[in-house]
Amino acid sequence: MDLSLIRPIIQSALREDIGRGDITSQAIAPSSLTGKACIIAEEEGILAGIEVAKEVFRLTSGEKVEFMSELKDKDSLTGGLPVLILQTSALAILKGERVALNFLGRLSGIATLTREYVDLASPFGVKILDTRKTTPNLRVLEKYAVKTGGGLNHRFGLDSGILIKDNHIRICGSLKKAVERIRQAIPPFWKIEVEADGLSEVKEAVELGVEAIMLDNMGLKEIKKAVDLIRQQAKEIIIEASGGINLENVAEVAKSGVDLISVGSLTKAAKNLNMHLEIMKP
Amino acid sequence: MDLSLIRPIIQSALREDIGRGDITSQAIAPSSLTGKACIIAEEEGILAGIEVAKEVFRLTSGEKVEFMSELKDKDSLTGGLPVLILQTSALAILKGERVALNFLGRLSGIATLTREYVDLASPFGVKILDTRKTTPNLRVLEKYAVKTGGGLNHRFGLDSGILIKDNHIRICGSLKKAVERIRQAIPPFWKIEVEADGLSEVKEAVELGVEAIMLDNMGLKEIKKAVDLIRQQAKEIIIEASGGINLENVAEVAKSGVDLISVGSLTKAAKNLNMHLEIMKP
Amino acid sequence: MDLSLIRPIIQSALREDIGRGDITSQAIAPSSLTGKACIIAEEEGILAGIEVAKEVFRLTSGEKVEFMSELKDKDSLTGGLPVLILQTSALAILKGERVALNFLGRLSGIATLTREYVDLASPFGVKILDTRKTTPNLRVLEKYAVKTGGGLNHRFGLDSGILIKDNHIRICGSLKKAVERIRQAIPPFWKIEVEADGLSEVKEAVELGVEAIMLDNMGLKEIKKAVDLIRQQAKEIIIEASGGINLENVAEVAKSGVDLISVGSLTKAAKNLNMHLEIMKP
Amino acid sequence: MDLSLIRPIIQSALREDIGRGDITSQAIAPSSLTGKACIIAEEEGILAGIEVAKEVFRLTSGEKVEFMSELKDKDSLTGGLPVLILQTSALAILKGERVALNFLGRLSGIATLTREYVDLASPFGVKILDTRKTTPNLRVLEKYAVKTGGGLNHRFGLDSGILIKDNHIRICGSLKKAVERIRQAIPPFWKIEVEADGLSEVKEAVELGVEAIMLDNMGLKEIKKAVDLIRQQAKEIIIEASGGINLENVAEVAKSGVDLISVGSLTKAAKNLNMHLEIMKP
Amino acid sequence: MDLSLIRPIIQSALREDIGRGDITSQAIAPSSLTGKACIIAEEEGILAGIEVAKEVFRLTSGEKVEFMSELKDKDSLTGGLPVLILQTSALAILKGERVALNFLGRLSGIATLTREYVDLASPFGVKILDTRKTTPNLRVLEKYAVKTGGGLNHRFGLDSGILIKDNHIRICGSLKKAVERIRQAIPPFWKIEVEADGLSEVKEAVELGVEAIMLDNMGLKEIKKAVDLIRQQAKEIIIEASGGINLENVAEVAKSGVDLISVGSLTKAAKNLNMHLEIMKP
Amino acid sequence: MDLSLIRPIIQSALREDIGRGDITSQAIAPSSLTGKACIIAEEEGILAGIEVAKEVFRLTSGEKVEFMSELKDKDSLTGGLPVLILQTSALAILKGERVALNFLGRLSGIATLTREYVDLASPFGVKILDTRKTTPNLRVLEKYAVKTGGGLNHRFGLDSGILIKDNHIRICGSLKKAVERIRQAIPPFWKIEVEADGLSEVKEAVELGVEAIMLDNMGLKEIKKAVDLIRQQAKEIIIEASGGINLENVAEVAKSGVDLISVGSLTKAAKNLNMHLEIMKP
Repeated sequence: MDLSLIRPIIQSALREDIGRGDITSQAIAPSSLTGKACIIAEEEGILAGIEVAKEVFRLTSGEKVEFMSELKDKDSLTGGLPVLILQTSALAILKGERVALNFLGRLSGIATLTREYVDLASPFGVKILDTRKTTPNLRVLEKYAVKTGGGLNHRFGLDSGILIKDNHIRICGSLKKAVERIRQAIPPFWKIEVEADGLSEVKEAVELGVEAIMLDNMGLKEIKKAVDLIRQQAKEIIIEASGGINLENVAEVAKSGVDLISVGSLTKAAKNLNMHLEIMKP
Repeated sequence: MDLSLIRPIIQSALREDIGRGDITSQAIAPSSLTGKACIIAEEEGILAGIEVAKEVFRLTSGEKVEFMSELKDKDSLTGGLPVLILQTSALAILKGERVALNFLGRLSGIATLTREYVDLASPFGVKILDTRKTTPNLRVLEKYAVKTGGGLNHRFGLDSGILIKDNHIRICGSLKKAVERIRQAIPPFWKIEVEADGLSEVKEAVELGVEAIMLDNMGLKEIKKAVDLIRQQAKEIIIEASGGINLENVAEVAKSGVDLISVGSLTKAAKNLNMHLEIMKP
Repeated sequence: MDLSLIRPIIQSALREDIGRGDITSQAIAPSSLTGKACIIAEEEGILAGIEVAKEVFRLTSGEKVEFMSELKDKDSLTGGLPVLILQTSALAILKGERVALNFLGRLSGIATLTREYVDLASPFGVKILDTRKTTPNLRVLEKYAVKTGGGLNHRFGLDSGILIKDNHIRICGSLKKAVERIRQAIPPFWKIEVEADGLSEVKEAVELGVEAIMLDNMGLKEIKKAVDLIRQQAKEIIIEASGGINLENVAEVAKSGVDLISVGSLTKAAKNLNMHLEIMKP
Repeated sequence: MDLSLIRPIIQSALREDIGRGDITSQAIAPSSLTGKACIIAEEEGILAGIEVAKEVFRLTSGEKVEFMSELKDKDSLTGGLPVLILQTSALAILKGERVALNFLGRLSGIATLTREYVDLASPFGVKILDTRKTTPNLRVLEKYAVKTGGGLNHRFGLDSGILIKDNHIRICGSLKKAVERIRQAIPPFWKIEVEADGLSEVKEAVELGVEAIMLDNMGLKEIKKAVDLIRQQAKEIIIEASGGINLENVAEVAKSGVDLISVGSLTKAAKNLNMHLEIMKP
Repeated sequence: MDLSLIRPIIQSALREDIGRGDITSQAIAPSSLTGKACIIAEEEGILAGIEVAKEVFRLTSGEKVEFMSELKDKDSLTGGLPVLILQTSALAILKGERVALNFLGRLSGIATLTREYVDLASPFGVKILDTRKTTPNLRVLEKYAVKTGGGLNHRFGLDSGILIKDNHIRICGSLKKAVERIRQAIPPFWKIEVEADGLSEVKEAVELGVEAIMLDNMGLKEIKKAVDLIRQQAKEIIIEASGGINLENVAEVAKSGVDLISVGSLTKAAKNLNMHLEIMKP
Repeated sequence: MDLSLIRPIIQSALREDIGRGDITSQAIAPSSLTGKACIIAEEEGILAGIEVAKEVFRLTSGEKVEFMSELKDKDSLTGGLPVLILQTSALAILKGERVALNFLGRLSGIATLTREYVDLASPFGVKILDTRKTTPNLRVLEKYAVKTGGGLNHRFGLDSGILIKDNHIRICGSLKKAVERIRQAIPPFWKIEVEADGLSEVKEAVELGVEAIMLDNMGLKEIKKAVDLIRQQAKEIIIEASGGINLENVAEVAKSGVDLISVGSLTKAAKNLNMHLEIMKP
């Protein structure tokens, strides 16, 4: 995690929450008062975002904070047990509390859900990937949380991978034209992936020699047929299953012979993992 | 919804997704090609964020876009039916697609969940409120989605309301001291709300003459006792229930005599509502 | 004062003054030369902004500055006596000089004028408040200066308080409608204040049960009548006088029984307090 | 006035005042309601900033505003008479009101005060100049207001003119060294001005062949002696008087033979000119 | 070219050149004066950046500009002939002149030089690529200019391609380890390119099954040997030559059998193409 | 060099190159690994930008970097010899490498070329100046590089000097009008320079009493005539030659009696000086 990329996101979140100042805390807490606080998990799960939380308090305290005990990202969380203990000015704790928890809760929620998918798919040698269905402006963090949960990252944005989708084909008239245009405009360092909705598209993609095929929203049977069809002709093509995959069916899909499974729910349907912060009695 | 506040969020989300350029689409779609597209709901729910989605395409198209048919926020969504039809350059559609859907999905998910709570609480004259447990840097949009779903907005940030919580009391030594300090530092235009974890704190808050009491993480019985205790002495005090309230128990809590119920899950556990975009055949 | 909020304002002010570089000083002062300087008050008054001035020099010196003697905000200033002594590179002093003085002069001017009002009103138990008539983009600093002078802060902006003014009533058709609309749209945590230009509006506001009334631009007699009218019916309503109040009449208004007096002149007619900076002979 | 330079200042001022939204107006004014409003001067003076005020409403209205009658900058203001009549959505008026008035008031206040000085000095062929004693981050606007009032602008910042001051001389050891260092480092396109506190410094500056001399904080007699001393030897040297000059003594100084008089008070002690905005009955 | 990405670069360049205002032009040109101007090429070459130049004048004129005759990017330039004729306010022309020319000159210089390389390499079916040796903060424009000249774009930044270089291998201890680590951390959508300084590295890379090999700083003979070595074993590996390639030797290298040649000089040693702007007599 | 001005440029360049992360290096280099690296010059020349390079690594390393041996700006470079040795995390080195080299190469290229001109002109007491023909958004750095090479800086932008050019005269109708308008609008602290294309314009400029004349695109003979013409009448007028001056003819022009020679090529036709970075074996 590169903090210089993430610091502006955190600063903006602090401005969002604090606005012109924490009127309750500023009236109540003498600015000289030091406090010790503990962030406590309320559920089981996988921790993600501890460096974000620490940066929150570095920012509210002007770097004057001490972290006394902390878990690391990827560690398991246990309900009721501490995640991070810190000491700094009481005001810095109160100003950072909600923002730190909002980041930690969201990222740990994603890491925890990712881990569940990974645990079901990895016995079959299949990797779990995220998608671009992330929360606007938090992609770098949410993709980090997916990695923390054991997943891999699909392309970061429209500029970091070639994926020919339905809409592209409709615009070109045919997959063939789409592939030709890409090969002309872009140097061959990029692999071409094609989204296929049915077996005929799979077949066409194989014939065009693309490097990867995404089986989109197919049922289990169709996935198996597609895998057979591809593997007979081109062993090295990357096969990705995507769409409609959930905790119930992910193991079955993983068994089907695909290389990768991408799951939108990792980022668009994860619940925040509950945590809270307690100021400790002196 | 004040678009001038929200435009920077959308621009940043577009930069996040597009990066240095949509390499697939730029290679495939001639820049002069016009397209017509339709956003289609895949589930039932309440629409929120249509103006955000339209602004996405205004930005990717340099304002050169026509919206031909659209639902309005608060309208009901039906799976399979169109939400928005638009016409602009094919490139502008492809560049805006995922960002528009990510916003629409998240905001409609929140509005839909809020509506469920509101439908359960409103028969008892009780309002549903959001919390500060929102996604970092999307609070203004998520609070808008809560209102779209029929909820009310609790304080926007630490600067727009006084709420004395556990941690504040621990810092001051007593609720009494906390209230005194606030009354001295802040002009009387602000109402003071106190978070109470038990009946003794409720009693103390009533005696101190605060304007609102949040019953935090209490069971149903305790809530009822607290309501009785408050109403006997101070009819005008605002009573808010918060913590551990879900779709199963919200009606019971609403019946207990509280004025308001705040629900963190509205923003921290809503699933995105599924939609997709299809480019229509010419 | 939260420096993280104010640092961007200071940085921008330094860029404004320095532009592409201090051509005189860069030509004259060797970059290795250290200097000692003293900021000296030229008039009596109340100091406000010392942390801003120090931050100016932290920024021009890259944090390499030592402050050897300094007054604190709220301290009294005496003409000819030092406010702050500092040591850093000569270039850092020269680059920060004017910006530091411009902040210090403006903020101390406001604090000094506020103190004059406070001294006249406080014997009658009346608080002095500021308004939104502040210098664009300096509100957070100017409201801080008012507090430093002993005043209280009225709402920070349009989002931190409800104030129904003339123009709102004209738009709604009646005060009654305006109050009703607010009570429907906004949770009851917010107090409603109404600006009243005459006794009939005061009466209407009292009947509508609003929490605060601003007596706007009334003469002393009318203020007294309004206070009587309000106090007979509703002891707990907050009464604020505003408009046309100056150092000549503020004591009289304070005697009238109002709770609060807001004074636009605090920020829109304060003169900068004169100070200058002298580099001390080695 | 270059609006592209000033628009960011206005946008920032609107964000400062509106924050997360004008809660009163949003609750009261239907978003479809159109209103007509009039800005009215409460005092005599010189108008400055009308384009700023108009831009405020262009921004709050998304460019959907009509200006029906307006004065131009430099026009005379009469108490009670309109400055600007506009029509747009009621909400856009309410959101822009205070910001527009704060800009107009401050800039017109500066223009009005400048005009007073100019009227006293111009009969003697002497120009009035501003200084760098401006409000942080408003310099471009305040210097514009000075020009609107008939003054000229001294250097904009440390990068747009060479002025050797006391502190520079102290650092160099002598004025001679300071002048030499500048002549070596900077191409001869820049004129060198020297701040002189007494006649001996004036003499030294003349001998060094500098192009301009600022007589700083001198009494009237000393100014006259300095003018004589300079004019005997170097007719073409620019003579500027500065420091301690006010409306009482500016004419006398102007008569002394100086070319220019710079007045810090133009920007650091001008009172805002009072105006208000009224929504007109339909 | 996506203007929304480039507009901030242009705005910043205008602020850089104009600063607080074009003092000469503002004093000389009445703000109401309209002018017609012509940009004229002084040399032969390939035009790149016409949309940038037009956007410059859209920004200085507030969109009030008419373009009457213009070449398109990729068009040939002839010394003495017009590139663009425009009509707008005289001030908008004067303020935009230098910035427009600086962009046009630099981008056309790069396109022109790229075309020379392309003309020499394309007869052998070899593509010319750029590198990351671009001017800081102008990469998006300079890579656009390379494409305009007929080249292809190598990876945009460190996040848009995998290239294992000398320094990476030194850090890992061996190329093998480096490849393994990448295959574990990154999904297989990315092709791996390896920079090889000699034949033994080429051999190792082939054995590891990487998808592309860059022959770095090799002489012509060594390049040929490397091409033979690779082609014998793996027809599909992409071969790129890089380092020390100039207009003298590029044809020879192109004949050697490589697929691609990347040339740092395209962006780091191109001379600006000379153009100037003339205001036309009315 | 004022790093606070330049840091944003460097940060932006790092974001440009690194994007969402250096995928190769992050996969390969353990985040705990420390490395030592050396930047090595590949050609002779003058070093410029060492502080920029160091700041690059301060930023990529979070200030955790040690510089063990370094040249200073203005030092001579020798091909094959080290410019800077540094130690920090291997990742910080890899992320900063290209950006540091791109800055160093460009700035040293400019300084080296400037020095060549200076060496040819200085024997005749003539100074070499830069122009505004700089790379957009790098002017502050490129002008610094010119100074490092021994040149002087002409005006930074349109706001830091008065230069009446052809286009201005065409707009006004005559040079006389242009000069009059400037003298009226701008205080006399600014010298007026006029661009003259022929002897008649030189004559007119002298008669108008301007302070400086730029002989634009004149041949050597015409330059000599112009110098004679000017010196006969006004010894103190600054004479600048500009346009068409190159390494072949600069000495001849310098001999002609002009004071200054400005050379656009310094910034628009300098080649980057080649350097590379090597990670040293442990």
